[in-house]
Amino acid sequence: MSDVLERLSKLPLRENLRGLQPYGAPQLDVPIQLNVNENTHPLPAEVSRAIADEVFAAAQLLNRYPDREFVELRTRLAEYLGHGVNPGQVWAANGSNEVLQQILQAFGGPGRSLLSFPPTYSMYPLLASGTDTTYIAGERGAGFELTPESAAAQVREHRPNIVFLCSPNNPTGTALGQDVVTAVYEAGEDAQTVVVVDEAYSEFRHAGTPSALELLPGRSRLIVSRTMSKAFSLAGARLGYLAAAEEVTAALRLVRLPYHLSAVTQATANAALKHVGALLANVEDIKVQRDRIVDELTRMGLEPAASDSNFVFFGGLRTPSKVWSRLVEKGILVRDVGISGHLRVTAGTEAETSAFLEALEDLLVEDRAQR
Amino acid sequence: MSDVLERLSKLPLRENLRGLQPYGAPQLDVPIQLNVNENTHPLPAEVSRAIADEVFAAAQLLNRYPDREFVELRTRLAEYLGHGVNPGQVWAANGSNEVLQQILQAFGGPGRSLLSFPPTYSMYPLLASGTDTTYIAGERGAGFELTPESAAAQVREHRPNIVFLCSPNNPTGTALGQDVVTAVYEAGEDAQTVVVVDEAYSEFRHAGTPSALELLPGRSRLIVSRTMSKAFSLAGARLGYLAAAEEVTAALRLVRLPYHLSAVTQATANAALKHVGALLANVEDIKVQRDRIVDELTRMGLEPAASDSNFVFFGGLRTPSKVWSRLVEKGILVRDVGISGHLRVTAGTEAETSAFLEALEDLLVEDRAQR
Repeated sequence: MSDVLERLSKLPLRENLRGLQPYGAPQLDVPIQLNVNENTHPLPAEVSRAIADEVFAAAQLLNRYPDREFVELRTRLAEYLGHGVNPGQVWAANGSNEVLQQILQAFGGPGRSLLSFPPTYSMYPLLASGTDTTYIAGERGAGFELTPESAAAQVREHRPNIVFLCSPNNPTGTALGQDVVTAVYEAGEDAQTVVVVDEAYSEFRHAGTPSALELLPGRSRLIVSRTMSKAFSLAGARLGYLAAAEEVTAALRLVRLPYHLSAVTQATANAALKHVGALLANVEDIKVQRDRIVDELTRMGLEPAASDSNFVFFGGLRTPSKVWSRLVEKGILVRDVGISGHLRVTAGTEAETSAFLEALEDLLVEDRAQR
Repeated sequence: MSDVLERLSKLPLRENLRGLQPYGAPQLDVPIQLNVNENTHPLPAEVSRAIADEVFAAAQLLNRYPDREFVELRTRLAEYLGHGVNPGQVWAANGSNEVLQQILQAFGGPGRSLLSFPPTYSMYPLLASGTDTTYIAGERGAGFELTPESAAAQVREHRPNIVFLCSPNNPTGTALGQDVVTAVYEAGEDAQTVVVVDEAYSEFRHAGTPSALELLPGRSRLIVSRTMSKAFSLAGARLGYLAAAEEVTAALRLVRLPYHLSAVTQATANAALKHVGALLANVEDIKVQRDRIVDELTRMGLEPAASDSNFVFFGGLRTPSKVWSRLVEKGILVRDVGISGHLRVTAGTEAETSAFLEALEDLLVEDRAQR
């Protein structure tokens, strides 16, 4: 591979790509994979069957280009979202990364800027770079919190063209209050800032934690993005989507590649949306395990963040990268997000969660022996 | 919709998108659709079944992210391409539009330029715009031909970062000689121009017309792009791919979104590649109809271009847009590509082709009565 990299260095690559590595979490073939916040529950058998049947039906017309307006899918997604969202307000693409990229293509680009608040989803600066949008790293408080006052002040200071708010936030897991979203939106009035609330993990919120979908009416610069990767157990199907004012979806039609969403992808997502009940039953299981992780880590004397997602970010480790390696040796893969003293773990099945908690507790003796 | 457009005009859209319409051929629900160069032959039943089975198998792991290196698919595509291409030289994305967009993201962008030679695939300038690459429209001869001398001179004059050569060319249908490709490549030596030969229609070439795949060895700036949309009857599955030096695919890994190719897409393409024989049998049928269209239009006194693709571009009409409308009235949709005196028609099944030829011949009386 070093030979290929040597030859790559001689190609007329864009300057901002020189020396970069491809983005992606390290993948290791271990039995318990709790590193990329997948839903570790396989699809219910009835859903796999329904997907294959719907794809078979779609295959009868696979020689033709797909419905570039994916009307059935937008209708089903709108119905799932509720909150009065209509199909004209829904847009979808191949994973929420592509949804976010299209937002940057429409409202960002050269001479424009994106503000987000690290630690947050690590693709945001890469999506900015890929669309030549200037990335501005905002600031959080000492405990990674983001207050309405601080967020609004940063928006007024930087006047970004776009803000990405991840809620629940990855990697910390915590949902933002509606007051943060409305404060950012109002602070962006002057610069006409487009505010995106990335709710990839929305379905795992605690009861009573509201969605930014409630805030859509009357806010034409607000976008709420979602994904079928997590709650729907469909990371492999790559279906991200959003809800916003109809004029926002009209803007995205100007930058989407024609027929960007295949007939097979549409069929897969439509089949899953006919089985929402079976799929979301797993979500309740996962929330129980997530809360269990928070309780157990607290009992162990660690510092887990409050989580409204399917993962837990926790501090209090002396040697997180060593703990990470020792967990791998025990067949358990979690994520070292590069934040001092912290690791992130996905809430898996009950058995996976138990295995993680037991292994970690054993390792804490070692960790605490370090100075 | 005008209400939405009014509201769109108030959003902070990028300046270069203001007033644009979404790209896409007009779609009308008529019985005979010969307007977007689809393969009008449905998938053989054995292939539809194989796709559904492979998707069902993939669905067992659909809760996990897909293989972001799509190793099996690259291996099968390399085997299909032959010419000594290895899996490390193959790359794929959601349609060849996305493949081309990734090439522009890696080698184009602000301050860089793309040269192509209109009339050619109408997405090229849009892909340039979407990646903030300056688009340069080159020139062809009076009969839309492109000679090695002219193409090379234009490359030396403009020093583009990228050249797109469409061969067989859309909308004219004619393949370029290898001498054009090598002349452009050599003329681009000084500016380190990346040369992309878009062979979307490659499988429809006449026997003896070579592919640019033959030119890959020793040419690290040469890329040959292909698609499964046409010969493989898989427009709905959105699978474009390319072959190039390994360092080119390494460059594209820096700009691709992580997990851009879904497990369902990979399964669909893999299933089809296990049935190459059945799929390519239709190609021979289509070539017969394509040659028949050229012969019959010539007999009618029209001027069809030589075609190595699954469509025919023809001149000699006085009122092409009127002929287009009258064909629609007869239930036949062809493409008005906006070139004086010309229309473009896809070679369909034998019955579709007969219906088109009969309808057109009837309409020529009217057309010739115009002055």
